[in-house]
Amino acid sequence: MSNFSFKIIKRDKSSLARAGELKTPHGKIETPNFVTVGTQAAIKGLTPNEVKDVGAQIVLANTYHLFLRPGDKIIKKMGGLHKFMSWNGPIMTDSGGFQIFSLGFSLEHGVGKIANIFPQEINCGHRKSTKNKKTSLVKIDNDGVSFKSHLDGSIKRLTPEKSIEIQENLGADIILAFDECTSPLATKNYTKIALRRTHNWAIRFLKAKKRKDQALFGIVQGGEYEDLRKESANFISSLPFEGFAVGGSLGKSKKDMHKVLEWTVPLLDQNRPCHLLGIGEPEDLFEGVERGIDMFDCVIPTRLARNGTLLTARGKINITNKKFIDDKKPVEENCDCYTCRNFNKAYLNHLFKANEILAARLASIHNLYFVLNLMKEIRKSIKNNQFYNFKKSFLRKYKK
Amino acid sequence: MSNFSFKIIKRDKSSLARAGELKTPHGKIETPNFVTVGTQAAIKGLTPNEVKDVGAQIVLANTYHLFLRPGDKIIKKMGGLHKFMSWNGPIMTDSGGFQIFSLGFSLEHGVGKIANIFPQEINCGHRKSTKNKKTSLVKIDNDGVSFKSHLDGSIKRLTPEKSIEIQENLGADIILAFDECTSPLATKNYTKIALRRTHNWAIRFLKAKKRKDQALFGIVQGGEYEDLRKESANFISSLPFEGFAVGGSLGKSKKDMHKVLEWTVPLLDQNRPCHLLGIGEPEDLFEGVERGIDMFDCVIPTRLARNGTLLTARGKINITNKKFIDDKKPVEENCDCYTCRNFNKAYLNHLFKANEILAARLASIHNLYFVLNLMKEIRKSIKNNQFYNFKKSFLRKYKK
Repeated sequence: MSNFSFKIIKRDKSSLARAGELKTPHGKIETPNFVTVGTQAAIKGLTPNEVKDVGAQIVLANTYHLFLRPGDKIIKKMGGLHKFMSWNGPIMTDSGGFQIFSLGFSLEHGVGKIANIFPQEINCGHRKSTKNKKTSLVKIDNDGVSFKSHLDGSIKRLTPEKSIEIQENLGADIILAFDECTSPLATKNYTKIALRRTHNWAIRFLKAKKRKDQALFGIVQGGEYEDLRKESANFISSLPFEGFAVGGSLGKSKKDMHKVLEWTVPLLDQNRPCHLLGIGEPEDLFEGVERGIDMFDCVIPTRLARNGTLLTARGKINITNKKFIDDKKPVEENCDCYTCRNFNKAYLNHLFKANEILAARLASIHNLYFVLNLMKEIRKSIKNNQFYNFKKSFLRKYKK
Repeated sequence: MSNFSFKIIKRDKSSLARAGELKTPHGKIETPNFVTVGTQAAIKGLTPNEVKDVGAQIVLANTYHLFLRPGDKIIKKMGGLHKFMSWNGPIMTDSGGFQIFSLGFSLEHGVGKIANIFPQEINCGHRKSTKNKKTSLVKIDNDGVSFKSHLDGSIKRLTPEKSIEIQENLGADIILAFDECTSPLATKNYTKIALRRTHNWAIRFLKAKKRKDQALFGIVQGGEYEDLRKESANFISSLPFEGFAVGGSLGKSKKDMHKVLEWTVPLLDQNRPCHLLGIGEPEDLFEGVERGIDMFDCVIPTRLARNGTLLTARGKINITNKKFIDDKKPVEENCDCYTCRNFNKAYLNHLFKANEILAARLASIHNLYFVLNLMKEIRKSIKNNQFYNFKKSFLRKYKK
């Protein structure tokens, strides 16, 4: 793919961390980097101008959501996603596979990508959860997935071929292979069956490709099982993808997630970029980079922002706290984001209490700037052989 | 007041329309103009940068709301309203008087500034309404007003002296006299009593003034009664206010409102600016300017925007309408607002359907730009002796 290339500029001496550059038809991405999430072709509350101003080099939109509304054919007719959302930089779309998890098992059992509950084997292929069950909207078979639209209840179907068709209509620069994202509660046996399906789908996905200007990333699955993860990394790395993503269940704790990365990333072709799906707390960014991750995406910074939780070098603060009612200082001193340059904590506290839309916006601007600036500092530290020192000093302050 | 001056640049030959310039300590306002409403020290969803970009020269914040939250003393401590909300241009605050109406009578009877229901005399000083009554939160006496905070139920009091104290703490450039805004359902007898109170409060308001850098505007009341309106205009004009505002009930129809303006404005000192409170549909702007109004404020453009109703030269459109799902054109062709320059109707339709915060923002930007640009065109037309022609051609297209 002539429009797409990945170059490693600098490798850390004592870890897998590396600084690189990813070229796409809509511009380059310095790595490691954070992909700002715009699920429905919009970064919650922010204009493309602001997304650029906070330092974003790439955004992610969600195939599943856009397939259902407004429909990929509408977006194609509008000239593609870049034109539709007026974002001229690189875009990534996921495959829709994650929704198999989030609308299926996650809804049924109330768990996220990292489970914090004790697993017990049950006979439906998944382990027991103590949470209240809701009915799954999803049926998976070897050919693909059928699901009920959460918008109108209609039955829809996704297959590898359909996923790439949708993603070609959307027209992102980087597109993700259609996979089955298993739950942290899945048994090893079920995870193995799902993994074989994911591998089979990866081959079908590559085969169905028509456009030549999009980079295809394969997704490594295998849950929390070392042998399955390794099998998956080896298999996905053997396919002609332009890059990789680590997806699926990452175990029951952050430590489990670190292990998954340690099993997986070293087996992937080191000359291709690797993305960690759906993870992005500040401490995760360091741990991921250290283990060879080049890109992250996560809704956490904007979701926290909408709830009034702001990221600072000294950890999170809840801006709605009474003590900020007459605080003249910005959220973070010396922060160059629009919010900190123009407003103090007292004003943000007021906006949140007064339920003003501007509250969520200004908070999102700050949190995204914080994360994207952190990635910039991480890149700098790698280039200066200071990654480990930077990680240590940042986390010491951040975790207090 | 050396920091404040009003200069008339051009008068229309066949009406009271005039183009002028209002100087304030935070910059000048070209008149006639529209004051963008930021009730709680924030223009719903917009940053100060955007407010400037849509062409706003002045914003209005609400004394009543800021008195209750975060409190005028907090805002004073933060360096005043300009600094608090990071808006360096002119600011106007209302007096809190309008809330006597909106939380008292309006809540009780479900009516706005222009009533559209048939009045019947009843013995409580107000005419009967067919709407369901809610309990008034307000008690008015000759000294001032006591009311229950809608936030925490605590009892608060506003008097002319308290209103100016709050407005001096807030520190706007233009502040409004404390008045009683009577309802369209008020009897003539009640309106007369309220009017005398308003006049007495105007004198007390002027007397209580301490700061020298704020312009005080007196408010003309008198409901829909010609003799009371004329009495009020003469009285308020005789006081040393820097400008005037026409407030209160404007009758039962737009025609009644026009009559109120025709009785009132000619009796006011023509060398001082005159504001029409709470009115701002495009057709009203023309009718007001024609009758000598220099400034307007209204929540309509942003409220409509949040509901998906967009203003265009050919009237209002509801962007959520199905027919816009694949409409490649901007809301208004040749419109220079950020929204129209960057997005088409299909994208706005999608954002509204997907409940994205960005929907309200982009729509608000367009509607405010539309109204502010209309005011600019009106000013230009007055200067070019084309006001009447412009009014005719605009309204012909706008009302189809």
